[in-house]
Amino acid sequence: MFIEKIVLSKERNVTLTAMIQDVGGEYRTVTERPGIIVIPGGGYSFCSDREAEPVAMAFLNAGFDAFILRYSVGKDAVWPRPLEDYDEAMALIRERAEEWHVMADKIAVVGFSAGGHLAGAAATMAKNRPAAAILGYAVLNEDVRGCSDTAPDVTKYVDYDTCPCFLFATRTDSVVPIMNTVDMMAALAKNDVSFESHVYSFGPHGFSTAEHVVQAAGTAITERAADWVQDSIGWLKEILGDFGTKGFTKPVCKPHVSDDKGAWLSIDCSIGRLFGNPVALEVLEPVIAEMKEKIQPFSPEMTFDDMMQVLGTMKLSDLLKERGIAVEKLDAYDEQLGKLPNI
Amino acid sequence: MFIEKIVLSKERNVTLTAMIQDVGGEYRTVTERPGIIVIPGGGYSFCSDREAEPVAMAFLNAGFDAFILRYSVGKDAVWPRPLEDYDEAMALIRERAEEWHVMADKIAVVGFSAGGHLAGAAATMAKNRPAAAILGYAVLNEDVRGCSDTAPDVTKYVDYDTCPCFLFATRTDSVVPIMNTVDMMAALAKNDVSFESHVYSFGPHGFSTAEHVVQAAGTAITERAADWVQDSIGWLKEILGDFGTKGFTKPVCKPHVSDDKGAWLSIDCSIGRLFGNPVALEVLEPVIAEMKEKIQPFSPEMTFDDMMQVLGTMKLSDLLKERGIAVEKLDAYDEQLGKLPNI
Amino acid sequence: MFIEKIVLSKERNVTLTAMIQDVGGEYRTVTERPGIIVIPGGGYSFCSDREAEPVAMAFLNAGFDAFILRYSVGKDAVWPRPLEDYDEAMALIRERAEEWHVMADKIAVVGFSAGGHLAGAAATMAKNRPAAAILGYAVLNEDVRGCSDTAPDVTKYVDYDTCPCFLFATRTDSVVPIMNTVDMMAALAKNDVSFESHVYSFGPHGFSTAEHVVQAAGTAITERAADWVQDSIGWLKEILGDFGTKGFTKPVCKPHVSDDKGAWLSIDCSIGRLFGNPVALEVLEPVIAEMKEKIQPFSPEMTFDDMMQVLGTMKLSDLLKERGIAVEKLDAYDEQLGKLPNI
Amino acid sequence: MFIEKIVLSKERNVTLTAMIQDVGGEYRTVTERPGIIVIPGGGYSFCSDREAEPVAMAFLNAGFDAFILRYSVGKDAVWPRPLEDYDEAMALIRERAEEWHVMADKIAVVGFSAGGHLAGAAATMAKNRPAAAILGYAVLNEDVRGCSDTAPDVTKYVDYDTCPCFLFATRTDSVVPIMNTVDMMAALAKNDVSFESHVYSFGPHGFSTAEHVVQAAGTAITERAADWVQDSIGWLKEILGDFGTKGFTKPVCKPHVSDDKGAWLSIDCSIGRLFGNPVALEVLEPVIAEMKEKIQPFSPEMTFDDMMQVLGTMKLSDLLKERGIAVEKLDAYDEQLGKLPNI
Repeated sequence: MFIEKIVLSKERNVTLTAMIQDVGGEYRTVTERPGIIVIPGGGYSFCSDREAEPVAMAFLNAGFDAFILRYSVGKDAVWPRPLEDYDEAMALIRERAEEWHVMADKIAVVGFSAGGHLAGAAATMAKNRPAAAILGYAVLNEDVRGCSDTAPDVTKYVDYDTCPCFLFATRTDSVVPIMNTVDMMAALAKNDVSFESHVYSFGPHGFSTAEHVVQAAGTAITERAADWVQDSIGWLKEILGDFGTKGFTKPVCKPHVSDDKGAWLSIDCSIGRLFGNPVALEVLEPVIAEMKEKIQPFSPEMTFDDMMQVLGTMKLSDLLKERGIAVEKLDAYDEQLGKLPNI
Repeated sequence: MFIEKIVLSKERNVTLTAMIQDVGGEYRTVTERPGIIVIPGGGYSFCSDREAEPVAMAFLNAGFDAFILRYSVGKDAVWPRPLEDYDEAMALIRERAEEWHVMADKIAVVGFSAGGHLAGAAATMAKNRPAAAILGYAVLNEDVRGCSDTAPDVTKYVDYDTCPCFLFATRTDSVVPIMNTVDMMAALAKNDVSFESHVYSFGPHGFSTAEHVVQAAGTAITERAADWVQDSIGWLKEILGDFGTKGFTKPVCKPHVSDDKGAWLSIDCSIGRLFGNPVALEVLEPVIAEMKEKIQPFSPEMTFDDMMQVLGTMKLSDLLKERGIAVEKLDAYDEQLGKLPNI
Repeated sequence: MFIEKIVLSKERNVTLTAMIQDVGGEYRTVTERPGIIVIPGGGYSFCSDREAEPVAMAFLNAGFDAFILRYSVGKDAVWPRPLEDYDEAMALIRERAEEWHVMADKIAVVGFSAGGHLAGAAATMAKNRPAAAILGYAVLNEDVRGCSDTAPDVTKYVDYDTCPCFLFATRTDSVVPIMNTVDMMAALAKNDVSFESHVYSFGPHGFSTAEHVVQAAGTAITERAADWVQDSIGWLKEILGDFGTKGFTKPVCKPHVSDDKGAWLSIDCSIGRLFGNPVALEVLEPVIAEMKEKIQPFSPEMTFDDMMQVLGTMKLSDLLKERGIAVEKLDAYDEQLGKLPNI
Repeated sequence: MFIEKIVLSKERNVTLTAMIQDVGGEYRTVTERPGIIVIPGGGYSFCSDREAEPVAMAFLNAGFDAFILRYSVGKDAVWPRPLEDYDEAMALIRERAEEWHVMADKIAVVGFSAGGHLAGAAATMAKNRPAAAILGYAVLNEDVRGCSDTAPDVTKYVDYDTCPCFLFATRTDSVVPIMNTVDMMAALAKNDVSFESHVYSFGPHGFSTAEHVVQAAGTAITERAADWVQDSIGWLKEILGDFGTKGFTKPVCKPHVSDDKGAWLSIDCSIGRLFGNPVALEVLEPVIAEMKEKIQPFSPEMTFDDMMQVLGTMKLSDLLKERGIAVEKLDAYDEQLGKLPNI
């Protein structure tokens, strides 16, 4: 590993500290790594050390490269300065991805408190979006005004293109009300954006990783609050993939339940969506033949087409898996459909 | 252990199956046990076996007595029949608490799907309220109309007296939308009712304990979904207490962050609330004397009273703990304050 | 679930309490369950309640049927009485396996302290051997004389046919010295019998599941001591199989590293063993052809046969997996080899 | 954090890479940190990268400073060269402890395979002993001859002064036989040295942290093998202490069950040992007075002195805790006894 501290703005004291781990050699199939940008909190008035390196360590341990972003704070925090700092940092990482052996499309963010606001902004409105965002006891709704006059209500910017999010907080947080996290969940749910969330029963604001080195043993905090670290790493593996025997594996959790609103078709579009597209029908011809054979309509009067209309909102992949149809070829069909615009 | 099946209504097929474990003897200080009522789901049209005994086993294992409630379903499910079934069951358990060595004031409920709706109704509108409620992929908002024409939107009934709740679900649940769980969190947060919640990234509806005997190995579900069982047991210990060397311990998590809205005063009321009550001031006289000595106002111009006004929304207990004042006597003061009506 | 208490001997107060869970119906592919016989400790002078039902609950929760054996103690404990009690119990369960929907060949034992001695005896010298044995802070070496004049040193009876064992204890156990567990590990290792073991740093004897209902919160015991329960369940799934989407899965951990000493051949015999058997060579002909193509000897002077001699102690399955040869057909070859006596 | 690579021997390519984390400031009561020396394996012919930085990350994450030791290998590995490298490294760390804010008396070692041999040698025969040793699938018995002609059988050197050890390995390790770990346990047990050990059911040699970045997802290894990391960190906290609200806490697990063989007396000596020492009796006078009042001999004929003789091998601390005598003053008595030589 080596550590490289890059100054993004000297006058505003904006820096990116890259912690880059080795690849290849004894790491066998590990020829590049996913990355994570760590965004500490501090009410947009400072960047907390407690939410910087201790957090980086957890993700380095899991095999990620880590990048600590110290962004514009205090009088320099006028929006969209902090978001521009983020965008510049992400652009720089992607530029140097090959040199650093980082997977440019598998870089997440993790932010805390006000840093969670910035991470949430990155997820919803940045030019250079992360692949996933972890938002810890984050300021996400209009409460942001408590620490910045100019920063936006992130929940208002959630849309279909927001990246998958992992949220956590303690319910009794007396600095950032828990409604920030609840409002964000609602916004993500309404836009069918993949998320996971954990609200823990009690504990103070600012517990970082809850390792005792940052949150001393004996503090009044539920012991479950420490779970977010391993849980979020498990979640990132679902969203981004994992180190496998034959290279990095495919994600097992897609950004959306259904791909009906996406730009391209997929096997995870609804039956209605796919059957309404003549080019898709052509691609699926052999599958449909098999479906006609194996799927019995609910009643003798129903035709196959009637049946498909009834099941129209079901994802095609779900139906095929349930009935054991073309299961080994799902990836192949998915690839073919992925070349067709969703119109 | 013995199992006793009690028929609450023969015609409606309502039963309560009590699973009562031994106390005393080699169980040493365990002379009575907390209890939990298990309420299976089934869309108010049946009671699912998958959410009955397998769930009871988990809580029996943790030392609880378990009670499986099979309530009115199908044509008998007209509201408030199911809630009356619950109320009758809880009344019966409390009546026989001494005989069964169950702690009458430490009986929780755990419900799933439509059974989660009933558990939520128990938490918010029953005559005989549980001490805590675990709501699994529960129907909690107006979506309940999908399975019952007459059942109420539980989220509308949440108030200060709602018991602490533990919520869990998978985000991709295609039967009960995740907004049910999110809406409930919002209602609890707004009413300052203690809760914990876990929304897992992906998985089907109806996974029960996620043990492979109920949700087969190989199902597409995040492995974290199984965590709710041990997490909810840990949470119940925070809310109800735990088996200790000298008997059952005190709870470490109160139903509300602040006791300002409660019927009686406590050390967890805000400074403003307590200092505005002359009888409370009398009780706290020695504490206040010590506070005057040890607490430095923020500026020389400030008086002690000014300072208290600034800190008015802070809980007295938090301030005393932070400053190391009267820490050993907090319980004693809490007891004394607990006799004073909060007016 | 139902509970049936069967008296095996009225005069010696020997009983078997069967706790049988439902199958079929909503349990889908679960048409039968694995079982576990729970053998409480008590120094062969009584049977401890603390190590009976609380233990059964943990395994019931994981989907097992549980059977609590209360065996001959006190003056009735003269060896081999307790072992005969066990043998009778296991015979009875296997007789009634169909009626109870228990998998007759997937019944484990779990025993504690003196009950761990009996479980160890079951694993090494019973007529009706269990499929796996969990031995908790068990008396296993000549220390057994401290509680029984007649009982044998179990470690002396370990051989190739001993079933896989899972051992756990606390190092500071002042009743049963930790060397009992260490001696057993040594005996298992020397006989190539599959085992897993966990020696925890500190804690008293007799902690059972370490749930607070049996070992009160606040006891001086490492918190890791509670891990044996879930760890042993995970281990049983490796040894016995697990509930899968298409029925019970195959074990992933075999009783022996190599099958060279077994009665029948297998793909897990060493290359030397298999290549020395002409009938096996015939079965493996197509594999060997593929090996000749794909495996390069270490030096140009080496023939294929030389190479196989060098690799003679390696398991054939390991070599084939490493080189990607016939990987999909391993099960088929294993089945064919399994019909050939190992001579 | 900063990384400093120190060359201990240029010609033998021996280096110590110090990874030093921040203290003070926002880390509040954390003014110094415990440390751990990471000793990678490689059969004394190289130092494996897989067992260097990935391991350091895990302990950095838990709040330790980490030091990677690359020691003499190949032709330079003639014993005691590697041990001298270790001794020099530990001496250097202790010299610079103040500068680096490392607790000089709380530095552990963690070694793997041949590096586990070196860590075991450090624990048993080094000049500069570590405070605790973690030995991963380590070469510990005479098998060491397989990779070094000159290195000693570590198990032969275990004595009362060996530091507490944490051992782990997989039973099916085909490179380092499991008996290495079992022999070490036996040696530790016989010398009453604190240890914890975990032998996992199956998995290959050399799995390091078992994070997928070092041991790819899909490898045939039990999922429990990854537990050693968090388990060993929990264990180190028991042995060394932990970060608490008022500074570093006291250890809860002593190096020996009884202090009877130690150089100084303690409350954890046996009753027989303490009552046989006149100076100790003087110190304990008030305790003994209380004991005489509260402890009833087993029969009316017994005197108090008879009773103490019966309980002679029991630790005084255990008896006092059990009977609730002088419980709050145990630390004070321990301190006083600690000044008396054990003669």
